[in-house]
Amino acid sequence: MAAEVEGARPNGKPGKKEKEPKDQKAANKSKPEKQKQAQQPKAKKGGEPELIGITCKKSEDLSEWYQQTIVKGDFLEFSDVPGCYIYQPGSYRIWEFIQDFFNARIRKMGVKNCYFPLFISEANLQREKDHIEGFAAEVAWVTEGGKSKLDKRLAVRPTSETAMYSFYSKKIRSHRDLPLKMNQWNNVVRWEFKHPMPFIRSREFLWQEGHTAHLTEKEAGVEVRQILDHYAAIYEELLAVPVVKGVKTVNEQFPGAHYTTTVEGYIPAVGRGIQAATSHCLGQHFAKMFDITVEDPNQQVKEGEKRDRIKVWQNSWGFTTRSIGIMILIHGDDKGLIVPPRVAEIQVVIIPVGVNAKTTDADREKLYDEVKSISDKLEGADVRVECDFREGYSPGYKFNDWEMKGVPLQIEFGPKDRANGVVTTSRRDQEGKSTIPLTDLAAEVPKLLEQIQADMFKKASDEYASHRKIIREWKDFVPALNDKNVVLVQHCASGDCEDEIKKDSSGQVEGQEVDVRAPSMGAKSLCIPDEQPEEVKAGTHCINPKCEKEAKMWVMFGRSY
Amino acid sequence: MAAEVEGARPNGKPGKKEKEPKDQKAANKSKPEKQKQAQQPKAKKGGEPELIGITCKKSEDLSEWYQQTIVKGDFLEFSDVPGCYIYQPGSYRIWEFIQDFFNARIRKMGVKNCYFPLFISEANLQREKDHIEGFAAEVAWVTEGGKSKLDKRLAVRPTSETAMYSFYSKKIRSHRDLPLKMNQWNNVVRWEFKHPMPFIRSREFLWQEGHTAHLTEKEAGVEVRQILDHYAAIYEELLAVPVVKGVKTVNEQFPGAHYTTTVEGYIPAVGRGIQAATSHCLGQHFAKMFDITVEDPNQQVKEGEKRDRIKVWQNSWGFTTRSIGIMILIHGDDKGLIVPPRVAEIQVVIIPVGVNAKTTDADREKLYDEVKSISDKLEGADVRVECDFREGYSPGYKFNDWEMKGVPLQIEFGPKDRANGVVTTSRRDQEGKSTIPLTDLAAEVPKLLEQIQADMFKKASDEYASHRKIIREWKDFVPALNDKNVVLVQHCASGDCEDEIKKDSSGQVEGQEVDVRAPSMGAKSLCIPDEQPEEVKAGTHCINPKCEKEAKMWVMFGRSY
Repeated sequence: MAAEVEGARPNGKPGKKEKEPKDQKAANKSKPEKQKQAQQPKAKKGGEPELIGITCKKSEDLSEWYQQTIVKGDFLEFSDVPGCYIYQPGSYRIWEFIQDFFNARIRKMGVKNCYFPLFISEANLQREKDHIEGFAAEVAWVTEGGKSKLDKRLAVRPTSETAMYSFYSKKIRSHRDLPLKMNQWNNVVRWEFKHPMPFIRSREFLWQEGHTAHLTEKEAGVEVRQILDHYAAIYEELLAVPVVKGVKTVNEQFPGAHYTTTVEGYIPAVGRGIQAATSHCLGQHFAKMFDITVEDPNQQVKEGEKRDRIKVWQNSWGFTTRSIGIMILIHGDDKGLIVPPRVAEIQVVIIPVGVNAKTTDADREKLYDEVKSISDKLEGADVRVECDFREGYSPGYKFNDWEMKGVPLQIEFGPKDRANGVVTTSRRDQEGKSTIPLTDLAAEVPKLLEQIQADMFKKASDEYASHRKIIREWKDFVPALNDKNVVLVQHCASGDCEDEIKKDSSGQVEGQEVDVRAPSMGAKSLCIPDEQPEEVKAGTHCINPKCEKEAKMWVMFGRSY
Repeated sequence: MAAEVEGARPNGKPGKKEKEPKDQKAANKSKPEKQKQAQQPKAKKGGEPELIGITCKKSEDLSEWYQQTIVKGDFLEFSDVPGCYIYQPGSYRIWEFIQDFFNARIRKMGVKNCYFPLFISEANLQREKDHIEGFAAEVAWVTEGGKSKLDKRLAVRPTSETAMYSFYSKKIRSHRDLPLKMNQWNNVVRWEFKHPMPFIRSREFLWQEGHTAHLTEKEAGVEVRQILDHYAAIYEELLAVPVVKGVKTVNEQFPGAHYTTTVEGYIPAVGRGIQAATSHCLGQHFAKMFDITVEDPNQQVKEGEKRDRIKVWQNSWGFTTRSIGIMILIHGDDKGLIVPPRVAEIQVVIIPVGVNAKTTDADREKLYDEVKSISDKLEGADVRVECDFREGYSPGYKFNDWEMKGVPLQIEFGPKDRANGVVTTSRRDQEGKSTIPLTDLAAEVPKLLEQIQADMFKKASDEYASHRKIIREWKDFVPALNDKNVVLVQHCASGDCEDEIKKDSSGQVEGQEVDVRAPSMGAKSLCIPDEQPEEVKAGTHCINPKCEKEAKMWVMFGRSY
């Protein structure tokens, strides 16, 4: 069986040496001592360490900007295992907010959380052919336990379809056991050799995987869409990230799926699309391989006659920590992270100002007490707030430090503010300062946080909308990509044609200025958007001039992650 | 370095064939088809499947009872990977309640959740000698990724000290960065070859691991105890499981720890102690190996002179899914699971009664509507409730089914109840039925659930208390163990003496009837209980007659898991 699977991957070279991905930063970190010294901030006069902000612009070197932003913003750290990352509290807290939000919604749908083993037997993993073909090249294998070799190597789960469906086969005995809806939050490993990118493409990542079984295709289909709506809501309502809902073309769907629905995001800085989350109807393939069948309750049979057993309809759906990377790439700026208030570990930081070497201890104490009471007021209004009382750091240092970490709202308070009965506010997402009367804090700060959330979403939505171009002629296709757009085109829905478009859109276009930083990869189909720009008229040709077929629908193409 | 570690384990036989643990049930399940057939319930007359309850008594065969109880109660299922288990929703939900409870408490202490990689490099794992010696024999190793051999094998984390402390070394630059308090909820793997037991001893398990760094030993010590209190609270307040707090003897402490505090539970059915959770002060060992130091802020230095760098004090503390197993072993009875209300996925199940083949559709619909309205009332009072409207099952079948699943309170409602304006209640933890007026449901049901919780805890506490025997003479030591007690004895606190006691307490005692089902293993020290029965008087001899030292303290010994 193993041989069959190996044979199915023509490029697989068994036993070849592993080629490590170029994870430059991770490589650097393998010498922690040296690293530590290099990162040690230099002390300025007066003992204050120098804050080293983001040293490059997002628009000039996105990759370098991204790495600096997530590390200096305390979102992520590199480990000495390439492609595996440390999620620091700032980013992990976002994951917890996502879990709470999603759990509340799926519980209402009757989905129950559970946990399946990390390790999957090879025999089990190989029971669905298309599925294993899709994952074989990137499975990590455990072969030793303690000092012993294992009799049979074990796969570290790349996903849990095969582990869960053996269980489903036992659990589902009658139509009364349907629908069965289970979900797990866990870690999965896909030992990819592509260039890893923290959050966006890593060898280990966190996700939830929902797996459900239904009596009918229709019922399964309804759920696929409910889940997709929840995924869109996580992006739009929590992460302030706009997405486009749609269905994947056959070329791009999940290995073993009947069809795949998706929410697709867009990264303005590079003009590339990015798959944000997918919800699959698996059809009956797995039910066949894992023998998940029930007697058909709707079949009319004569007394004493047995009903036929019918295969169940299954769905699977997953949402990953990639979402955090998308959020960072969309909202961050040259000063670092910008975290939407609803998922910010710290929503407001209060910095006492106007104290210096000449301030008496009594005056300092009075100010700090006032700051603490402002903080208490905000906590009472359910705001996640922190006071920065660190000694030996100037207010300027603190402002920049919290800016880099993306805290949505900074409040400063000093003798001048006291005199005016206000606090001074700075929004992370906009320039400039404003004030709020001390008496209105509990009402105004939560309102302002919601405003920031709404403004961040609107800004990102406008940007995405203005870069989804309707393209009607092939000559405009590649130029639009080069201008950092994704494109909506009328397409024949054939996989071969998609491959051709990918090939033909990878080059530069004569006469157009070449942006050396733009990816010149080919465009792939991102999805068939639910919201079609208009009806495709009979007789319309596919966008691809080499294609002889008629267009069937609007498809969104783009360069992508 | 690898050679050194191998050498440190005299029993390690590199390359020897793995000996699978005897996981009988799991082996059976490797033929799912056969299994399925065997488990398929037989249809009784009228189409109702026969409910096969727990077929053995807890007091007669605890091991078989346990396996049936967790599987038939839908808490756990075996996978085809020995020692790795499927946590079904009923048990996983308990884990989520524990997470919520503990997260709220540690957040108040300033602990932040995070996530570190599943894989740890071998070099990193080996940086603390005692620590690696403690884990080397049970590490699972990944050696292949996709079709390639890895250059360097990777450990699947058995715990994350070594992964996290490299990070701590970078993160902690000054005393201002202290305390640093991080926690993660994750899965760990310990490839043990001992007999596995679901929840209690498994190769993969879920836990939280907290890791903190402090400036002083005192501060670290305070936290160790705060956490131990939280662990005791999870057991006592959520799981209704009594525990004894104490400190481990040196023999039993965590590899690499300065000292280990513990909460110890007790399983009445076998009279064995069980380690419930541990909170360690690691001292400065890891700080030394990982170079986690800060300038001493309290050192008096002359102008321009540099302060000494001092090593930080570290703690680590962990709470695992073993807790669920302890809860099951303590509360369950011959009918199956009994789940304490506070952690029950379903607290109340409502079963409509008094309908039969002659009932008109209108009457049935009316009854079901009333049941639904009772359910709505309870939901409104934050009770987790489910209505059992399954067709084709008798009320008797349903009662037994929910009993097996451990639902704390069953409510039945039928025409007779309607006539009396009441519902009929059955507590899972006690025999007999009672009623509650329909008008009082929202107030009385939550109160009753809390009463069940309190009664379950009291019953278990009384049982534990009556089996903690103060033993003053060696002749009474083994008989007390054979009577299913743990014992409190005056002890010299030496490790060699502990080893001797373990050896000498493993046999049977002349003249005493031998209980063939009781474990005849030797007793080990469970902890030095915080609550000492009395002062140890000078000149008191150690309980061990072969020991020539004086007793220093009361130590709790017992046969244990």
